[in-house]
Amino acid sequence: MRFRVRFAETDQMGIAHHAAFVVWFEAGRVEWLRDRSLSYRELEAGGVSLAVSRLDVTYRLAVRFDDELELATRLTELRSRGCSFAYTLRSAERHVVAVATSTHVATDRDGRAVRIPGDWAASLAAAIER
Amino acid sequence: MRFRVRFAETDQMGIAHHAAFVVWFEAGRVEWLRDRSLSYRELEAGGVSLAVSRLDVTYRLAVRFDDELELATRLTELRSRGCSFAYTLRSAERHVVAVATSTHVATDRDGRAVRIPGDWAASLAAAIER
Amino acid sequence: MRFRVRFAETDQMGIAHHAAFVVWFEAGRVEWLRDRSLSYRELEAGGVSLAVSRLDVTYRLAVRFDDELELATRLTELRSRGCSFAYTLRSAERHVVAVATSTHVATDRDGRAVRIPGDWAASLAAAIER
Amino acid sequence: MRFRVRFAETDQMGIAHHAAFVVWFEAGRVEWLRDRSLSYRELEAGGVSLAVSRLDVTYRLAVRFDDELELATRLTELRSRGCSFAYTLRSAERHVVAVATSTHVATDRDGRAVRIPGDWAASLAAAIER
Repeated sequence: MRFRVRFAETDQMGIAHHAAFVVWFEAGRVEWLRDRSLSYRELEAGGVSLAVSRLDVTYRLAVRFDDELELATRLTELRSRGCSFAYTLRSAERHVVAVATSTHVATDRDGRAVRIPGDWAASLAAAIER
Repeated sequence: MRFRVRFAETDQMGIAHHAAFVVWFEAGRVEWLRDRSLSYRELEAGGVSLAVSRLDVTYRLAVRFDDELELATRLTELRSRGCSFAYTLRSAERHVVAVATSTHVATDRDGRAVRIPGDWAASLAAAIER
Repeated sequence: MRFRVRFAETDQMGIAHHAAFVVWFEAGRVEWLRDRSLSYRELEAGGVSLAVSRLDVTYRLAVRFDDELELATRLTELRSRGCSFAYTLRSAERHVVAVATSTHVATDRDGRAVRIPGDWAASLAAAIER
Repeated sequence: MRFRVRFAETDQMGIAHHAAFVVWFEAGRVEWLRDRSLSYRELEAGGVSLAVSRLDVTYRLAVRFDDELELATRLTELRSRGCSFAYTLRSAERHVVAVATSTHVATDRDGRAVRIPGDWAASLAAAIER
């Protein structure tokens, strides 16, 4: 996923705010799923969400408004009721800007942990990169 | 409603980003309703939302991180299926920072326009300040 | 500018929050300028900002997570110390989702109104569409 | 720090979005500093920022619009050029909603690591809670 830092994502330090990265990682997950013909929108419409239970981010370089960034996302772990993703965010010059991991729990509409639906589990299992 | 500008709400101009004001006005509506014993949370739980159909903001003064602001909200118009609010945002020194109006349509969970529930309509009617 | 609604931009009504539109319009301005070889990043680096002094948005249709949207931006007015833009946001099916206008004042780093730099003024003058 | 979940902070799952927590933790740091007569605003005005280099969040409970939350912040580590904070976010019923840690590097306006100013270092040293 390639994108540019939005002006609204900057802060008074003149750099992208650290919370904006969290939104980018989420967008990276959605695109990663789409690339594997998995629609997160449809999963949610079916009543299952991948709620975030843990998030770790290491920020290495500051990025600025209008910088073009490239986000690589991969699925690193799959459990019956959850999964984990890893992210590497790079600048246009290929420097590593940030790395992160997120852990997710499949939940129903009431927030209870549920099993990942069978067709999703199969598709995800085929796409793991440790 | 009194609050401080959050760091995340600033942008690289060193001032609060203009989209942050929109979030503040919404918070002002929620507090205005609470002050009149109307819970927007309960209205939503009952399936009715006050969707924003129009928003006009005039920005007069820039505000900065950690500035303490005071937001005055008032209901200016009530219709069977909607209402309008007006906002005046002031600095700690009582300077007008921004003024705004928002127009709302009562909608059900499918986004269809509906009448404002009777008990809400009565409470709102009693609270109009033109 | 084409883009998709991010998950973080939705709210509990299940639709894109009205403040997210304000961020999209800003991104539309930046891309509109880029298409005319004007870098808003460079303008800011040179000490001049186009601060928002007024914003009017009419919301016509709710949009949802992952919806693909198209934003058309145009410059409608140019003054020595400011300018105005108009926006039309459309769904993939070409329905008008929202229309908006924004008015801007050129300011220096201390927030004082200044003239738009000569080369920018000339480029903008050539690009007005009323 | 006590505050309520803003409507704009919810997402279509009907809960506060996980990126909102990151903004709350930052606000918690600012208030923690203020309680010790340290103004983060003045630190920044003097050209020093506490840039985030690492962030770890564990989300335990979902929270909803208008929920009242209480955030406890503490300084857990101090180095010549940085520090770490820990956060515990609790519901009004005192349940732990999330725990987090953030690591910071003192930087100058060009993003270079610098020593924490002497007066700040002394105040911070007196306030460490491991």
